[in-house]
Parts: sequence; structure tokens; C-alpha cells
Amino acid sequence: MKQYYSYDNFRDDTNSLIKEVKRFEPEALVGIARGGLTLAHAVAEGLSIREVQTLRTELYDVACKREKITLFGNCSFTNLKRVLVLDDIADSGETLKEIMNYLEHEFSEIEFISATLFYKTTSVYKPHVWINEAHNWIEFFWEKDFLQD
Amino acid sequence: MKQYYSYDNFRDDTNSLIKEVKRFEPEALVGIARGGLTLAHAVAEGLSIREVQTLRTELYDVACKREKITLFGNCSFTNLKRVLVLDDIADSGETLKEIMNYLEHEFSEIEFISATLFYKTTSVYKPHVWINEAHNWIEFFWEKDFLQD
Repeated sequence: MKQYYSYDNFRDDTNSLIKEVKRFEPEALVGIARGGLTLAHAVAEGLSIREVQTLRTELYDVACKREKITLFGNCSFTNLKRVLVLDDIADSGETLKEIMNYLEHEFSEIEFISATLFYKTTSVYKPHVWINEAHNWIEFFWEKDFLQD
Repeated sequence: MKQYYSYDNFRDDTNSLIKEVKRFEPEALVGIARGGLTLAHAVAEGLSIREVQTLRTELYDVACKREKITLFGNCSFTNLKRVLVLDDIADSGETLKEIMNYLEHEFSEIEFISATLFYKTTSVYKPHVWINEAHNWIEFFWEKDFLQD
């Protein structure tokens, strides 16, 4: 069953998320493309954080093997202690797990906190902050409201 | 006079923008942070483009000199012909001008197209595509709808 997730839902939940993540006092944000981009923008505005970077992953089917996630994008952090990583949903959780592993190894002096709007209990990765448990297929407004043909 | 620009306004205008930029057949998007992030996400979904990168600028007041724009972020494009650069508004136009110059010099084999939701006739840079002429101070929903205190 598909569940349409409107801008109004997003606005309310994102404000809840902002209140939750505020206590970590993040100094910069990483939005995971594409799903985390609108969220990263909103949280950046809400917390008055100017520094927003993005990372992107792609899932490849490797013949006869497990799927492989490749990570794109270059983050660079200068003199930062705490960075917040944002995505729309921890579904399988593979993407977030991969990205958090990458960031924590690459920038071991920085504390990374993750936050999502939705979390599935079957996810292999549990974000530090999540707002809703996902039971249905979530259809985010950005997947539905814009021309595709 | 401030003019509130709601999500509904954004949705309609972004769909117009998507129709306009479609003919350029962009293969990747660059969203200018922060203002262009939500737009880049929406256009990426609307055109089914997975590759979204971001750039960020900061304006420094250099004592007794003209303000200087510094550019942050690393774009990398592999085997691409056409890339669409997105921002919310060409206001002074300094940011977009700087970014388009940078991209065109750094990646001279790629055609860059720029698009914004708003354009001020006083801007030093005119985007290839823009949807509205800005007369008032535009207050975008992402600047207003999220917790700031």
C-alpha cells in the first residue's frame, strides 16, 4: 500500500526532527542525494547552518554476487566537530550504513549523527534520530508532484 | 514588501521550469546551496536524473575592497555533455555569474545551462531559463516554514 507523504506532513515532521537534532549542535550537514536533499535544505534553514554538502550512491547488480553500493561525491570538512547526515528514509538501510561507515573512517576526528524522517525496523542501520516508523511504501511529495514523462 | 512563496507556488513554477529545461536534455544537475537545493531535488525527480551535485558560495567582506565570493564544493562530471545549474533566484546575480564562470572554465567540454525560479532585471547574470521576474523580496517557504530560534 502506497502512502502519499505531502509537503504539510514533511513540514511538521521536519520541524520535529530539527528539535531532536538541535541538541547535537551540528555545524554542517550532509544530504544524501536524491532523497535527503529537500530535508537537508529545510534543516539547514531551520538551524541556520550554511554548510550543506551532498553524497550520492548507486547500487549495482554484480552478476551472481551481492549488490554493490558505490559512493559519489567529495565531502571536505574544515575544523568541524559535529556533522549531521540526512536522508528521507532508512529502508533497507544499506545506503546509510555505507555512507556512515565511509564518513566515520574518512573523517575520524568528526562525530557524525544521522537522522531520517522514516525508519523501517528491518533496516540494517538505525539512525540516531528518526521521526516515523515506516510500515507502507512512502511516496514522498517530491516523487509525485513534479513532471515525469 | 515581502512576498511569501509557498510550496504550492513552488510546485507549479517548478513544473513550468521542468518543461522549459527539458529541451536541453540535461544529464546531470548542480544545485547551488542553500537556495537551489529543494529545486534541484524536484527537478531531478521530475526529469528522472540521478546525478545531483551541489556547490556553495560565501561572500566575504574584504576590508576597503569589493566583496569577494568564495566557492566551495567539488564537482566532477564523467562523460557528460549537458549539465543544468539550478538556483532559486538570480538576485544580484553575483553568485550565479561566479559559479557559471567557474564551471565553464573548469569543464570546458560541457555545456552548462542555468535556470532559476526568479530573476531580477538588475541581476548581473541572466539565466538561460527563469520563470518569474522578482519585484518584491521573495520569502521562500524553506526560509519561513522551519524552526529558527
